Amino acid sequence: MDQRALHAFFAPRTVAVIGASATPGKIGHSVVTNMLGAGFKGRLFPVNPKGGSIEGLTVARGVSELPGGIDLAVIAVPRDAVLPVLEELAAKGLKSAIVITSGFREVGREGFDLEQKMAELAISHGIALLGPNALGMMNTALGINASFSATQPLMGDLAFCSQSGALCVAILDWARGENIGFSKFVSLGNKAVLSETHMLRYLGADPASKVILGYIENVENGEEFLRTARQVCRIKPVIMLKAGSTAAGAKAASSHTGAIAGSDKAYETAFRQSGIVRARDVESLFCLAEAFANLPLPKGPNVAIVTNSGGPGILAADACEKTRLHMARLSPETIQRLQALLPSYAAVYNPVDIIGDANAERFRKALEIVLDDPMVHAVLLLLTPTAMVEIEATATAVVHLARRSEKPVVACLMGHTHVYDGKRILRQAGLPCYAFPEPAMRSIEAMYTYALWKQKPVPVYESPPRDREAAGRVIEEALQRGQSEIVEFQGRDVLSAYNLPTPRTVLARSSDEAVRAAEEMNGPVALKIASPQISHKTDVHGVALHLIGEAAVRQAFWDITTSSQRLRPDAYIAGCLVQEMAPRDAQEVICGFKRDEQFGPLLMFGLGGIHVEILKDVAFHLNPLSRDDAFGMIRSIRSYMLLKGVRGTPCANLNALADVLLALSALAQDFPQVYEAEFNPVLVNFERALVADMRMTLRA
Amino acid sequence: MDQRALHAFFAPRTVAVIGASATPGKIGHSVVTNMLGAGFKGRLFPVNPKGGSIEGLTVARGVSELPGGIDLAVIAVPRDAVLPVLEELAAKGLKSAIVITSGFREVGREGFDLEQKMAELAISHGIALLGPNALGMMNTALGINASFSATQPLMGDLAFCSQSGALCVAILDWARGENIGFSKFVSLGNKAVLSETHMLRYLGADPASKVILGYIENVENGEEFLRTARQVCRIKPVIMLKAGSTAAGAKAASSHTGAIAGSDKAYETAFRQSGIVRARDVESLFCLAEAFANLPLPKGPNVAIVTNSGGPGILAADACEKTRLHMARLSPETIQRLQALLPSYAAVYNPVDIIGDANAERFRKALEIVLDDPMVHAVLLLLTPTAMVEIEATATAVVHLARRSEKPVVACLMGHTHVYDGKRILRQAGLPCYAFPEPAMRSIEAMYTYALWKQKPVPVYESPPRDREAAGRVIEEALQRGQSEIVEFQGRDVLSAYNLPTPRTVLARSSDEAVRAAEEMNGPVALKIASPQISHKTDVHGVALHLIGEAAVRQAFWDITTSSQRLRPDAYIAGCLVQEMAPRDAQEVICGFKRDEQFGPLLMFGLGGIHVEILKDVAFHLNPLSRDDAFGMIRSIRSYMLLKGVRGTPCANLNALADVLLALSALAQDFPQVYEAEFNPVLVNFERALVADMRMTLRA
Repeated sequence: MDQRALHAFFAPRTVAVIGASATPGKIGHSVVTNMLGAGFKGRLFPVNPKGGSIEGLTVARGVSELPGGIDLAVIAVPRDAVLPVLEELAAKGLKSAIVITSGFREVGREGFDLEQKMAELAISHGIALLGPNALGMMNTALGINASFSATQPLMGDLAFCSQSGALCVAILDWARGENIGFSKFVSLGNKAVLSETHMLRYLGADPASKVILGYIENVENGEEFLRTARQVCRIKPVIMLKAGSTAAGAKAASSHTGAIAGSDKAYETAFRQSGIVRARDVESLFCLAEAFANLPLPKGPNVAIVTNSGGPGILAADACEKTRLHMARLSPETIQRLQALLPSYAAVYNPVDIIGDANAERFRKALEIVLDDPMVHAVLLLLTPTAMVEIEATATAVVHLARRSEKPVVACLMGHTHVYDGKRILRQAGLPCYAFPEPAMRSIEAMYTYALWKQKPVPVYESPPRDREAAGRVIEEALQRGQSEIVEFQGRDVLSAYNLPTPRTVLARSSDEAVRAAEEMNGPVALKIASPQISHKTDVHGVALHLIGEAAVRQAFWDITTSSQRLRPDAYIAGCLVQEMAPRDAQEVICGFKRDEQFGPLLMFGLGGIHVEILKDVAFHLNPLSRDDAFGMIRSIRSYMLLKGVRGTPCANLNALADVLLALSALAQDFPQVYEAEFNPVLVNFERALVADMRMTLRA
Repeated sequence: MDQRALHAFFAPRTVAVIGASATPGKIGHSVVTNMLGAGFKGRLFPVNPKGGSIEGLTVARGVSELPGGIDLAVIAVPRDAVLPVLEELAAKGLKSAIVITSGFREVGREGFDLEQKMAELAISHGIALLGPNALGMMNTALGINASFSATQPLMGDLAFCSQSGALCVAILDWARGENIGFSKFVSLGNKAVLSETHMLRYLGADPASKVILGYIENVENGEEFLRTARQVCRIKPVIMLKAGSTAAGAKAASSHTGAIAGSDKAYETAFRQSGIVRARDVESLFCLAEAFANLPLPKGPNVAIVTNSGGPGILAADACEKTRLHMARLSPETIQRLQALLPSYAAVYNPVDIIGDANAERFRKALEIVLDDPMVHAVLLLLTPTAMVEIEATATAVVHLARRSEKPVVACLMGHTHVYDGKRILRQAGLPCYAFPEPAMRSIEAMYTYALWKQKPVPVYESPPRDREAAGRVIEEALQRGQSEIVEFQGRDVLSAYNLPTPRTVLARSSDEAVRAAEEMNGPVALKIASPQISHKTDVHGVALHLIGEAAVRQAFWDITTSSQRLRPDAYIAGCLVQEMAPRDAQEVICGFKRDEQFGPLLMFGLGGIHVEILKDVAFHLNPLSRDDAFGMIRSIRSYMLLKGVRGTPCANLNALADVLLALSALAQDFPQVYEAEFNPVLVNFERALVADMRMTLRA
């Protein structure tokens, strides 16, 4: 999308309202009065075949009466009239449009087709088209309210865009009540042309918008969205609320990976990787925005609490411990200074309880001392309206100190009437002020998480050594044979093409062959059913482990092949794979990927067989993957301690494990035909990581 | 505590204010004006040596001038005058007291001693004493505000008691702003005499209080508190916010069980078992209270959402899925009726989206239809202020339907100005009304959890067959020898006294003995270091598993004893235990208990060795334990699926596992000398549960 068209959209000098109406209550009337009410300084052209005048403006009877090159047309005519009028406008050089009219994609096939035609028309003429089925757009700095909202927003430095018009309505009303203002406000509607990605790019460069807030249900082009978000998040915070999940992908999943890599996981991963702060609900969207818009980012995780109330102080400490933040350990010097300041029975450790009779001066001094401590990265100032509290003087002192400090100071004034003036003073000074300690602490946490993301070095991507041609031959052959899966004995060729070590494995077609193979391996072996149709081997009792000696191997061959044949009479049984057993000290891990419909290959990593499925202790990452990212995945699972070594077990070779993940990432990138892949189990001990079994699903 | 003294406390007819003052701003002045301002109808006696009059009341110069048998004395004199004045009052038949004065236990040793003396005096005279260091008490129905709060509470049906006076101040101010009223309001202070348990018992029987809310930091007598809570929760909901945790217990913990059974776990367990609803923060304390005070409990987990807004509807469905509630699956009849009512492009499945142009009548009919569906147990009505919304008529319709229905209808009106009148109508009718869908959904969840608790049958406790004398002998002998721990070879005697099956085990003092024992067991064996000083055997490489054949056993004996001796030169090495190996299909579980300082024996159960410690997938239960409770523990861990059998493994013998837990519970009850015990691992397969290893910590 041409940035000039987007500029015409957000900063139009000429606006036509197609379907303008003189009847209050009609959408075409609201748009005109909203534009006038917002104080639009450009030229406004109401259009209606009936002519006449609306709110003192002469009404044009048709597009033909309009000048050429209109910056923005707001279209609120009946559905079937939208396309013709847009054609007329396009012919006269229209630059951008908002289609308020609904009845398109959201009502069925016919509407969908109409929307497609409209989008094609807009794209071919370079028209930045918002909607259809949108509430509209507002740009408070320029007095633009091109919407039928019943509420005029206040001016502010938050940009907001939403895929739900109803949510826009609720938020405009709520924000007005909370005195929260906006720079830009956009209802995206059906996103026929303009999407969240266009908004992100434009608002990222918009100096009037300090923070970008968004509500989305899906994104239109995942990979472009991610690229844009990564760039914009370097410049300013983006906070998003993601609703629902596209169940389609998750349901179709056929492997363990798929079953839990539902698309919400992909969104979670996408947000985390690209620096987007994910809000957990509407309320916290704005709680977070307040902090991000007004405070410096904390340089570390250590929070100090300064309070005049013991109980709330404990609640705040509880809230801190529930986040990734830490309660700061104050330095001896800080403690000495606090002791000199405070009554003997005050608490000089963290939380610093300056007790109920604290006046403004004691608040000020305690806050100053704590802010001076180099081990404190952020301060929560927590006040309850005791009889002695000097609310206005305290708030004023906090404003002074907070403005001077490079550390975020978050205020929480608990109460209502008796803290009202304090809240007013803080808010007027642009400082966030919360009513409860928990959201205050979560805001600090989100800022810290964002600060960590911003500090991350630019990733370095390596290209693992591999024989792409050899792997490609196996995959192509399988596709040509009509296989939808590649399993063990074909899979081993793919693994070796990616230089992945596998346990010695021999296909035995008879029990005699199995016994011979086991003897050559000179140690305990495993037998596994070999059949291209059987992917979950344990379901057919198709696995036997720790076999020693001829008798055991022979018996296992017989057991496995007969039970598999009995339980899956449809399957072709090639025999059994005889495999050297992993060393006893090896941990089992699973590595895999699945292509997410929005975001491409979603890599996953987790510990041990069925534990992934049941305990859901899994790390995800969207391609591409750097070695640092791979280590990050490994470290982020709850059971990481098991890999690091506990109770005398040495640490697993994490570098070898990272190699497996990097090869998997390369495989996903090399072959779009591979829809999902799972290496399960990968056996890792202090020496090496062996891929003991694998499955890949193909899609032609 | 005598209930008559508590009645005199909450409903006094004569109130003396000791330390009353004519100077505004002083605590002794605030108490008098608060009593007068609240409209107290009884007799109020200000007392101050200076005499004179306060607010028109004649001031008594001392206790001697007061009539005998005062119902309630509010004491706000300097600390060192408190005890003498209380003695005087006690001598004249005082029934109850509120000690506002601070400077007692909270400031150190001297204060602590004074507080003890005061408590003894009160108890010996049967005086119901609140505080010291308390804000005071309010009983709105009788016009009593015996506190120095700056805020007069509104009348309502919530009872509130808090261990933090500062929190009381904040909540009184906040609740007034939110139009939330109270029946009783109590600041507990230092709890020298009256504690949360007294309050719970009194308020449980108080018809003016529909819901009891509490903020606590600790409870005074855990077992009595639990007994009382269990009774009161049968009558009315109790919602509590628990702050902090008594770190002392958790830090002292020496076993895995102890390390994670920190006392907050004990509170969590205590609340769950006794039916107390735990609020996660101050805000949700009141969110929950609104719902509990005014709605019928849901009879099942299925929630239907009726909304005029797509996006918020998805957010509400997301919120539902994050709780233990389910999105109701509407019946075909309901869907037909909705189809007949709604425009073709409305969503007739759940969430039911009656779309943006819905008027009050459409809201009313849709809500009526959904409430008629027998598979719907609760309804969330979710509205955003679209242009077409008829806010007052809709709210009125909701009130009518909700009052008639036996199902809870929770309203969520998103916005501010444009939904204000709707909120007012709902609140006036006593219906909860939320601003966001998430807290609304969590309120329904809490009501459902409480309903489930109320439905639970009264537990039946069994007495597992056991030889208490035999077990007692082992424990006494160990104590007499000065042992602080009982480990394997002594422990086995305790286990067999409780009829717990153990794997065949033989103590081998030499490698020859080990080989002989292994041969007799005729199968793979384990060797484990036998030393009373070594509790974590794997830390000293003191365990070898799956040993087959003479050579392997001999080598393992040598490895284990030498490495143990090297790593723990202080330890007496008795040899190695030779133990039959568990069947390969057995799951390892851990059962244990630890005595919580507040609540007594806290039983725990979890799956597999180090997974308990690292994945924290553990269930807890406070003694006593019924068989149902034991099954409840087993089923509640995340990894329960592994016990139920996955991928061809048969279900573990859960009844045998319950037997182990019941025996453990009996052991905890039988021997207070056993401070903590851990059975680890317990090996369970489809046949039986074997206790393979155990440790007990003793306390004389």
